[in-house]
Amino acid sequence: MSSMTHATAPITELRERRRILGPAYRLFYDQPVHLVRGEDVWLFDTAGKRYLDAYNNVPVVGHANPAVVEALARQASVLNTHTRYLSEGVVEYAERLQAHFPAALDTVMLTCTGSEANDLALRIAFEATGRRGIIVTRNAYHGVTQALADMSPSLRPVASHVRTIEAPCHLAGSPEQVADQFALLVDEAARDLARAGIPVAVLIVDTVFASDGIHIGYDEVLSRAAAQVRQHGGIFIADEVQGGFSRIGRHWWAFERDNVIPDMVSLGKPMGNGHPMAGLVVQRSLVEAFGKNCRYFNTFGGNTVSAAVGLAVLNELERMEMPAHVARVGEVMADRLLHLAKTVPCIGAVRGQGLYWGVDIRDPGGDSARNGLLAQAISNGLRREGILIGVSGHQGDALKIRPPLTFQTEHVDILVSALARQCQAVLPAVS
Amino acid sequence: MSSMTHATAPITELRERRRILGPAYRLFYDQPVHLVRGEDVWLFDTAGKRYLDAYNNVPVVGHANPAVVEALARQASVLNTHTRYLSEGVVEYAERLQAHFPAALDTVMLTCTGSEANDLALRIAFEATGRRGIIVTRNAYHGVTQALADMSPSLRPVASHVRTIEAPCHLAGSPEQVADQFALLVDEAARDLARAGIPVAVLIVDTVFASDGIHIGYDEVLSRAAAQVRQHGGIFIADEVQGGFSRIGRHWWAFERDNVIPDMVSLGKPMGNGHPMAGLVVQRSLVEAFGKNCRYFNTFGGNTVSAAVGLAVLNELERMEMPAHVARVGEVMADRLLHLAKTVPCIGAVRGQGLYWGVDIRDPGGDSARNGLLAQAISNGLRREGILIGVSGHQGDALKIRPPLTFQTEHVDILVSALARQCQAVLPAVS
Repeated sequence: MSSMTHATAPITELRERRRILGPAYRLFYDQPVHLVRGEDVWLFDTAGKRYLDAYNNVPVVGHANPAVVEALARQASVLNTHTRYLSEGVVEYAERLQAHFPAALDTVMLTCTGSEANDLALRIAFEATGRRGIIVTRNAYHGVTQALADMSPSLRPVASHVRTIEAPCHLAGSPEQVADQFALLVDEAARDLARAGIPVAVLIVDTVFASDGIHIGYDEVLSRAAAQVRQHGGIFIADEVQGGFSRIGRHWWAFERDNVIPDMVSLGKPMGNGHPMAGLVVQRSLVEAFGKNCRYFNTFGGNTVSAAVGLAVLNELERMEMPAHVARVGEVMADRLLHLAKTVPCIGAVRGQGLYWGVDIRDPGGDSARNGLLAQAISNGLRREGILIGVSGHQGDALKIRPPLTFQTEHVDILVSALARQCQAVLPAVS
Repeated sequence: MSSMTHATAPITELRERRRILGPAYRLFYDQPVHLVRGEDVWLFDTAGKRYLDAYNNVPVVGHANPAVVEALARQASVLNTHTRYLSEGVVEYAERLQAHFPAALDTVMLTCTGSEANDLALRIAFEATGRRGIIVTRNAYHGVTQALADMSPSLRPVASHVRTIEAPCHLAGSPEQVADQFALLVDEAARDLARAGIPVAVLIVDTVFASDGIHIGYDEVLSRAAAQVRQHGGIFIADEVQGGFSRIGRHWWAFERDNVIPDMVSLGKPMGNGHPMAGLVVQRSLVEAFGKNCRYFNTFGGNTVSAAVGLAVLNELERMEMPAHVARVGEVMADRLLHLAKTVPCIGAVRGQGLYWGVDIRDPGGDSARNGLLAQAISNGLRREGILIGVSGHQGDALKIRPPLTFQTEHVDILVSALARQCQAVLPAVS
């Protein structure tokens, strides 16, 4: 790897990087981290400094997981080809994956990215319903294709066939009241679309409402909303790119905390532990409608290597009994974060479950313009201490914690102790 | 791998496959090929039967290329992470890739699939021009996203902001006349879009016009068309997903046969020799316009593993001096195919260059309804002889030959000799 020193390397590299990759690529941190190695929950930079990874949700069974790497290397050395020839791998993988879903979600289609999965879900929904109206939450993010950017208000204003509704995390009241209000918003949006002559085809939600600020309650938000959109003749897509594969603990999929069976479930990020694979689990009747008029072929989707990698990831998740493990570690995380919120002045709400957490940073003096500045300072302070987290939220005022799921309680201790120190340290530092 | 016998396995497997993957997935051949191993230009099935691969354009430096597999395995075992941390790999790869392009195409953006690359190209074009009109060829295919399916007439009728024009392969006359006519069609389509209040943003063509029937002349078709669309304020996108990385020989990119510098070039299939990677090479001013309002992040695109794989593929292509190699073997292929066309009665036009060829099959009795049947029979006959090719064209009446680029003249001999036998054998067999 690189033998350049920490002090001079970044400047040249940043210039070269910006020259060749252009301005649409952004980096994390004031002083970007230059990583060269990963192992389980640890990352290492060019200077040999070790970081606890409390941010990356893709390497779900740990960075450079040996079983996954071995499956990748073995299959790539034997055969890498597409789904138009027979191969056991893709069928076995699809069956193993489907076994973790309710029986009604009986068909698996494979893509390379979560964006491709959501985009395909849209195409199927449009074909099956003969409609084009879409309902999303106010700050939703569903992917980078043209069609998805048009319905991702976190990226840009939505197109004319899209309606946005407030996410549950911004609705007040008891769980029942929040579910009531959210269903009512779906109802109103569907009526509005119908009035505009664009009847609703789809309600799609990220099942952990990540970009809206995180909502993971054991409530009826999802089931009530799904029932509502179905009453209007639309279908319900659960976007599990963020919430899937045990992220919130106890269940494999975040939608399972509620009594709902989605019409389609889209999967992405952790599916290949970093290998580009994603997919869609769908109720058969919808694919039949789509398959009547459309064929679907994805050159790399479900190729023999992706199938082998996906299978290795499933094996690891099952071996580690991941839903139970995440629930266990997540409880400790919840206790520690909620306790911390009571003991330091700069933490507002703490929202999350399992290993997906958002921590709002609030200026103790009540100057909300300083919240984002404080969050940045805490994130940079943690980075200096050797801990990587993310910053998100409308005003960049929320810490985002979503580590590899192999995170243990000892890692929770390291993270929360450092967070406590940084919350104390940051107050004078930015005044 | 499988120990099932050839006779009974496919039936059960086909049933299971259809049950879990659904009806939108199609297979090649009446009796699908069940592959278990690949090596250079060879593929092997469950029964140990060996096939010469004269069809697959993805494993461009050969199936299971050892250098590529090693790079993949080594990087995956060390670190697989995204572009928001610094890493040399992605910058080095982007620079090495860009060095094969004209200087004006100075910026590289990385995605996972050709569809994502073309979809991103559209987003950039829309943002940069403030327009939405699109011109494509009559049977174009540019990808599977919603936005690309809307402009891929080979998949379904195009949307209202899209105009289709006849591809050069279906225009008559001298090279100059064809270039004249094609430019005129671009002009007419741009005027038509303007009249409809949807001024043209983009002319996009597959630079080998693969799904339209293949056109690879050393002529001015591309440069004249690009000049024409620019006169109307639109931009020219060269889709090199099929034609790129030396496919037609002599040059790295198919557009280089003409005196044209595209505004954007999209890349895909062979870029990672099967590893899911793709990208866009763009003139900086366009990305600046896009980057002003849009950020772009692709979770897997340009990750450390993809960068390492891409670099290994470039290394192999350079080491093998692929443009020259393909030109050399392509000349032999041209001679042999054109000679065969004169000696057997069922071959019509032979179109192509380098290692991309289309061979029209024609019923000697002039019954055009039988052309597709004959092509199918020849393809199935070749498969029995242990040679894989494809069948395409509007009526499924063209053989498609586009092998791994490590194809040698001895492989051309095997292929064309077998093709000669099958062309003879097929006539009585299907009467």
